[in-house]
Parts: sequence; C-alpha cells; structure tokens
Amino acid sequence: MPNNLILTGFSGTGKSQVGLIIAQLWGWDFFDTDDEVTLAAGKSIADIFEQDGEAHFRHLERQAVASACNSSRAVVSTGGGSIVDPDNYRTMITSGVIICLEATPETITRRLQESSDQVSDLRPLLTGPDMIQRIRGLKTQRQAYYGLAKHTVHTDKLTLEEVAQEVYARWQEIAHGATNEGASEKLSPAFVVEAPSASYPVFVDWGLQDHIGKFLLGIGIRGPVYVITDSNVFGLHHGQVQRALEATGIEAHTFTVPAGEASKSLAMAESIFGWLAERRCERSHAIIALGGGMIGDLTGFVAATFLRGVPVIQVPTSLAAMVDASIGGKTAVNLSVGKNLVGAFYQPSMVLADLDTLKTLPARELASGWAEAIKHGLILDASLFRLIEERVESLLKLEPEITVEVIRRSMAIKAKVVEEDEKETTGKRILLNYGHTIGHGLEAATHYTELLHGEAVSVGIVGAGEMSQKMGLLSREELERHTKMLQRFGLPISYPGVNPHSVLKAMELDKKAASKVINWVLLQETGRATVRSDVDEELVQQTLNDLCR
Amino acid sequence: MPNNLILTGFSGTGKSQVGLIIAQLWGWDFFDTDDEVTLAAGKSIADIFEQDGEAHFRHLERQAVASACNSSRAVVSTGGGSIVDPDNYRTMITSGVIICLEATPETITRRLQESSDQVSDLRPLLTGPDMIQRIRGLKTQRQAYYGLAKHTVHTDKLTLEEVAQEVYARWQEIAHGATNEGASEKLSPAFVVEAPSASYPVFVDWGLQDHIGKFLLGIGIRGPVYVITDSNVFGLHHGQVQRALEATGIEAHTFTVPAGEASKSLAMAESIFGWLAERRCERSHAIIALGGGMIGDLTGFVAATFLRGVPVIQVPTSLAAMVDASIGGKTAVNLSVGKNLVGAFYQPSMVLADLDTLKTLPARELASGWAEAIKHGLILDASLFRLIEERVESLLKLEPEITVEVIRRSMAIKAKVVEEDEKETTGKRILLNYGHTIGHGLEAATHYTELLHGEAVSVGIVGAGEMSQKMGLLSREELERHTKMLQRFGLPISYPGVNPHSVLKAMELDKKAASKVINWVLLQETGRATVRSDVDEELVQQTLNDLCR
Repeated sequence: MPNNLILTGFSGTGKSQVGLIIAQLWGWDFFDTDDEVTLAAGKSIADIFEQDGEAHFRHLERQAVASACNSSRAVVSTGGGSIVDPDNYRTMITSGVIICLEATPETITRRLQESSDQVSDLRPLLTGPDMIQRIRGLKTQRQAYYGLAKHTVHTDKLTLEEVAQEVYARWQEIAHGATNEGASEKLSPAFVVEAPSASYPVFVDWGLQDHIGKFLLGIGIRGPVYVITDSNVFGLHHGQVQRALEATGIEAHTFTVPAGEASKSLAMAESIFGWLAERRCERSHAIIALGGGMIGDLTGFVAATFLRGVPVIQVPTSLAAMVDASIGGKTAVNLSVGKNLVGAFYQPSMVLADLDTLKTLPARELASGWAEAIKHGLILDASLFRLIEERVESLLKLEPEITVEVIRRSMAIKAKVVEEDEKETTGKRILLNYGHTIGHGLEAATHYTELLHGEAVSVGIVGAGEMSQKMGLLSREELERHTKMLQRFGLPISYPGVNPHSVLKAMELDKKAASKVINWVLLQETGRATVRSDVDEELVQQTLNDLCR
Repeated sequence: MPNNLILTGFSGTGKSQVGLIIAQLWGWDFFDTDDEVTLAAGKSIADIFEQDGEAHFRHLERQAVASACNSSRAVVSTGGGSIVDPDNYRTMITSGVIICLEATPETITRRLQESSDQVSDLRPLLTGPDMIQRIRGLKTQRQAYYGLAKHTVHTDKLTLEEVAQEVYARWQEIAHGATNEGASEKLSPAFVVEAPSASYPVFVDWGLQDHIGKFLLGIGIRGPVYVITDSNVFGLHHGQVQRALEATGIEAHTFTVPAGEASKSLAMAESIFGWLAERRCERSHAIIALGGGMIGDLTGFVAATFLRGVPVIQVPTSLAAMVDASIGGKTAVNLSVGKNLVGAFYQPSMVLADLDTLKTLPARELASGWAEAIKHGLILDASLFRLIEERVESLLKLEPEITVEVIRRSMAIKAKVVEEDEKETTGKRILLNYGHTIGHGLEAATHYTELLHGEAVSVGIVGAGEMSQKMGLLSREELERHTKMLQRFGLPISYPGVNPHSVLKAMELDKKAASKVINWVLLQETGRATVRSDVDEELVQQTLNDLCR
C-alpha cells in the first residue's frame, strides 16, 4: 500500500501550509486539491459555486483527489469538505495515511479573518454574516468524517512548524507500524451511515467500551454526557463505561431505569426530561444509550425531543440491538394501547457496538439477536446467509473474527436500507419486516410475555417462507435451508398452543396494516425480498394454523 | 401576461401526449422539456443522471423550461420534477396557466409498465424494484408543488382526448377570467417554504377557512383528518371548518383541549395520542392544528411524534401564530421546570392563515401579534418596517389589502430565515430572537401571568434597541422610530414594578444562554441585525433598571 500523507480538516487549520512545509522537507510532491480544481476550471472556487453549482465543484474535486492520491511519495492537502464524499474517502484511505488538522471555530475564524486571501473567493460556504456560526455549523456536520483520520493534531496553540513536526512524527508511527496497530485499528469505523438527515460512524469490535471517551472526542463531543441505562446493564457494564469516560476527563451523569419493557413509557421519558433539565443539559452536550433495544428506543426518543434534539450515541449491549435497533434512528415509547406508537426518526451521532457485551447475554437472548442477523442475509445478501450457514458452530461459540465479520456485515445491510429509505417513504425499509408481520402477531397474541422478539420473528420467518414457497416464489429446498439454520441457532420454527385466530386478529390491528391491506414481505429467493399485497387470506390462515399446531 | 398552457404532473399522467393533442388542435407550438434536454445533451436522461448527476440534469432542465416558456402561443409539457425548482416555478407562473395532470400511483405504474418506452431511460428516478413504492414516495414529496397549479385534472378514468378537452375547458376559464377569479386566486399560495427537510405552501388571505377542504385535496390529503383545537377557538371557528371539510367529503374528528398554556403538557399530548390510536390514525392521514400558538406547538409535537410523524396542517387563528409560530416547524410542550423544553423540529405540510380570524381577537392579542410582525421588519427588512410605519392606522383597522400584504411579507421573512437555518445550527435563526432575551426574562419574572408574549417582546425590543444604541450601533433617531411604532400599536415600551434583578436571573436561566454567555441579538440599523456576545454586564443591568423603573 502506498504511504502518501493525506491531510484533511476544516478550512483554516493550516493544511496547505503544513503540507507544503513537509513536502519540501521530505523532497516529496505536494498537491493542494483546491488549487488543482481552480487550475482545472480556470476560475476561482467561488465562481465555480456561483456559476456551476456545488455539485459541479464536488465533481471536479473528486477528479483532483483521485489524481493527487494516485501518486507515490506525495503530500496531499485536501479541501475541507472532500472527505465527506465516500468515493474520496476510499481513494484517500487506500492511498496513504490520513491525518486531520483540527482547530476550534474561534481559532479558524481568527485565522481566516487574518488571512490575506479573499475568504469569499476560496471558501464560498463560509462567507456572509455570522461567519463563526457558519463555521460551527458546517464543522459539526463534518466532524464524523474528520474522525475517520488515523490521527488528529490540534493546531490551536502550535506554530506551523510545530504542527509539521507533530504530523511527521505521527505519520512515521502509523506508516511504519511503530504504534499499537491493534488499538488504532479499532478507532476506524466499520462503516459510515449516510442517511439523508445525518451521517454517522459505526464502530463494531471487541473491547471498545474501554475507549469510549476517545471515540466521543473523535467526533467532537467533550461532555458533559448523560448516560441512560437500565438496572441490569448498569451492573454489567456501567462501571467500565464510567471509568473510560473519566479517563478522558468527560463529565458523566447516569440515569438508571428499571429493566423491562414497562420503562419504555412517556411517564419514564418525562422523568428523564426533568432530570436532564435539572442538570441543565444543553444541545451541545450528548446523551448515551447504554443497553439493549428498550434503552435504545427510550433514550433515542428522549434525545430526539429534549430541547428539540440533543446528540445521542447508541452503545448497544445486546446482539438484537446491535444488528437492528441501534442503526437507523427509529426511536419510540409505548402507549397503553399499543407498542412504539409514539416516537421520532432521529439518527444517532455514533454507534459503538462492543462485542464483549455479548458474553454477558443469556443464550436465548443471543439466539434472538441472531434471528435478526439471519433475516438481513435472507432479504438482501445471499452470501452473508451462506457465510452464517457455514460458520454456525463458530458463531455459537462467539469466535472473535467470524463474529465481528458477520455482525458488521449484518449491520451494514441495515445501514444500506436506512440510507435508501430513512423515513419509510420509498418502500425499501419495509423489507426489514420480513418475518415481522406474523412475529408481531404472535407477540401481541401472547401479550409479549412468552416469546422474545427474535424468537417470534424466527417463527414469522418460517411462516413468510412457507407463504413464499406456496405462492411459487421460493423453492422448497431454500425454505428448508432457512428453517434448518434457525433451528441450529436454537430458535423456534413453530409455536404450538397459541390460538391462530388471535394471531390473525393482532396482525390486522398492527399499525403496519395501512387501510386493512397487509403488505407482505416475501422471498423470491435467498437474498431477494419482495412486497406483495395480493396474498390469499386462506393461505395466511392455513400458514398460521400450521405454525400454531 | 402571456397565456401559454403549461402542463405539470407526475410521469405517466399523460402530459406529453395531451400537450401534443392540444397544440395540434390549436395550431400552437409544442415543447416537451424532457425532449429538449435530451436534444441539448445529445444523450438520454438516464445517461445524463448516470454520467453527469441529477444536478446537471436540473441545470439543463432549467434552461429548457426558460426557453420553452419564453414563447407565446405555446403548450409546454414540463418534466415531473421541474416545478419543484423555484426558478422554474417563477418562469412557469409568469408564462401562462399551469394545469396539473394527476393520477394515482397505481394508474401511473400500470401506464409506465404498458408504455413501449424504456422506463429506465426516461425516468431514472423510478427504476429499480418496488416501482410503485418509489412512485408513491416521490409523488408525495412533490405533491405540494403540484398543488401550485391553477387547476388539477384527474386522469385515471379519462381517455387522452377527454383529458385534452377538460384541460382546454379549464384553460379557457382561467385564461379568460370566465371563472371566479377571486376564489381561484385564493387557491394560489402566498409563497412556498423550502426548508431542507420539507417544502410546503403557505396560504394567506381573507375567507380561506370556507375552502379548507379544497386546500387539503390540493396537496393530496383526502382524510380522515384529526382537528386539534382549544375551548375558545372551538366556539369561534370550528363549525365553519367542520362544514368546509364535510362539503368536500373529508371525514373529520375533533379533540378540544382547555384554552390556556396549561394544556401544552406531556400529559395532554398523551391524552391526544391515546385518542388518535383509538381512532386508528395512520401516517397517510393528517392532523390539523386549529388555534393560536399553544395549539400549534402542542399539535405540532403530537403530529411529529405519533407513529413517528403524521402530516400536520397549521391553521393559525391568532396574528402571533400566523407571523411566527405557524411557520418553521418548531413544536413543543412545557415541563414543570421550564417552557418548551420538549419538542421537535417538524415542518407542517401546509399553512393556512385566514385573516378573518383576526376579527375575533381581543385588541391586546392583536397588538401582541403586531409586535412580532414589526420585529421581522426590524431585523431583516427596513422597507417592511417603513410600510408598517406609513400604514399603522389602516392596519389597526385591519383594512383588507394592506393587512394581507404586511402579514404575507412578515411571514415570508420568517420563512426565509427558516430556509437558511431550519434547526438552529448556522446562527441565522437566532436573529428571530430580537427582543426575546429580555422578553423571556420579563415573562418568567412575572410568572407568565401578566404580559402577553408580544407585549414582553415589545419591551424587550426597546431594551435591545437601547443597548444597540449605547454600543454605538444604532442611531438615537432610529431607536425613537421603533419605540414610537410600538406605542402606536398600543404596545408597552417599559414595564415598571417588576424587580430588574429577577428579570436578569430569569434571563441567565433561559435555555438560549448556552454556557452562561448570552448571545445578544442587536441592531446595526433598521432592517439589519447582528449577534454579539460581548455586551457589558453593566449595560444590561442599566437597561433593565431603565425598563423596569
């Protein structure tokens, strides 16, 4: 792999000057992508924005980044917004070591005002009144991407030469592996979710909670933070998280709710609101959801609505929460008349899935989580399904490498769907409900007391598979593969004893049944789901009878 | 004004075919902007999207629309997404009569599938699996813009020739004023708010409530609808709204909360949630906020969070709610420890301000609303301020033409600010708080029982003006203009008797005071606001002493 030095960071952090100093020192080539764009277009960046639009500028910038990163022995200073583009990021990460130069909005404003350049020519996004507020806003939006760098140098109190020295030392360490590569690897996200309303990094690995403070600092959160957890998780994980926050000097407050679904209520949300208000939580602070799906939903709702939105970090401690609820921004509380009826679409600022927490889960809960991971393979990724199939025994033992791979891939599928359909308007997100129509019906018919969510989904997957098969979509062999896999994870494939009629009634009352017609997610083959509203009522009835026999 | 016929509407509604038939019949020129774009680029629309991006396509489309609309005696069939662009809309509306062809997503899917064209070449946004869902999603996004047409023809059950006949008849009526021009004028919005998360039309005129059903149908809402109102407004306006909804066959349910700020609570929201759940409110239905600021905030919060978001229509019945709260999507409920601490940014699908409701307001409430309208002029539009100044007497008498002009312009300023800073991240929206720092302090220090919001803001405007003047920003003459104007509307310019120290304490506790530093909105001149965090504490103290003496 080439070992170029790629500098990222906001305008005014000194990327161009520092890059040039280093290139001269080393005798390397120097590229400034903003300069390359200006040269290629034959006009100033402001004119490109004005005359051709930002999209065209980004197009030229992609070409400049690709061309500069294609060199070897090069220092590349990239435009402040270029790392946000996923193509650019891929180009940069494969071309060398990315180092971010950082400065506070106050420092940046001062530097840009002192600079002899015409700010408006170079940085059209920053001109206009209230420059510091614009800088703060734009910088916040980009902070998750700057967190993708291998190292960040805080430049506020350093001279250009000191910054250059620091960058050189870090590049040496990273490029030549002098640093602890394991730890620095962990600080790179598994992927970034690019939802229309927000982008955020997702970290998935073993032993992450010890570093939670560093992850928060990496996306610009300095505290105070407000940890919401439940009485079970508190005992298992809170001490470690608290220590890791203290180690980085982040002030933390904790609110513990009783474990169990009953805490997912408006009344509990109101208690937390009052607690946050007393502690004077502000929009510039952050809330941490430490727990399983219940905590993620409740905390997400609280964060979405307190002061009309405070950043939230999802730290899922159950497998189901990792592969499903922690990603995608669906937050909710229950009403007495129904589950998840009140909530918001509100994306987290970061997801931190520490696989060590899986070791503390009871076997049934772990299996319930695998049901959702398997479902992601079934609807969209046949190769993931095959991988799980081949490695069931290793996954059951939580063998480190295969576990992290399968969970990352399953989470990435969820992320992809969310990117395409954040708010359930295009019809893509409904595919995630494979197995859920019958699953929800079973849960409701048994009053949410007998089956774990993933167990009900497992039975629902068998039901939806049966229906797919009988409608001539899915082959009998494929269906048998699915059923066998669920069984190997110890998941139920039927649920005798419940009245199929009460399941059907609950399904019809389910909120996803818009205007009485049920939109069924079915499979055309493993890895390819489809939505059908023309399923015969008798087939549904027959399927439920079979499942409940 | 040229009287071209401009056809808008979704793909598959027959625009091109119908447009060609009419042009041939009349001997007029015919333009299809999609064809013009293809011709200009020398490649298919799919290739333009693929190779140059959607932004470039939109650029070419703007040129095609401008060129076609520049003709006279022309029928122009425009691309399904072109009216969304504000430049295109302006071009179209000044070039002739816009008529929309409409069809259900089911009809559109069927037509596109039956069409011999390669759908993917012509309509890259619609290709891929789940075509009907994509159509439904994209069509919903655009529906507000299709509502900008002068007339809509539902084509589902008509032949192309019947559609052409219907379009011709409507064009005749509208172009030659054979229809009731007054009523059709009212059905055009004053402006469209283009916030990052949503776009929506704002209607401002006399006598609109009688037509509420038509407005809802215009943006594709067919009911059921859930009207939330309060016990005062119910008696004044609900009967009229109910009748107007019945007249268009829209099923309506009503929930009435007690008038007064105490209803703006989580407990009340929970009651409404339960009521909505019982009536099986779905995301495809709509909620109507009929009332003043309290109803708008509470209903907006309920709509933002029930099922993670149901469309909401703001129908403000107070002047303050019209010029301020109904636009911009700030929704909230109060906690016992503070006001507006829980809420969401959630834009309405439409705002319908019927000025007739102003006739039912007590004089103090009307004056309180004018304070906000004046404030918009002060911070961003000196000419609006001058207009109000010149026409105070007419405005006090609610003379029809000047009242509608001033209120529209004031609302448009609020809309502009929201477009630039929907979620208070860029620093622009804070300008709307001119007069509010002291205003909130006064309200809190008097326990919200003595002053109306606009009255407190009026005193705050004088205070902030004094500070601006003493800091050398604003001239003494300008400040006197402001004070005199407030007085002419019967608004207070000081508030003797309250303890200035308790006002200061309340200001420091105000949630806008992030990290203790107060960001003061001050004026540099009439119509030009600025934000300053370097205001001397003694100046603040002195100003409060003067105001409270």
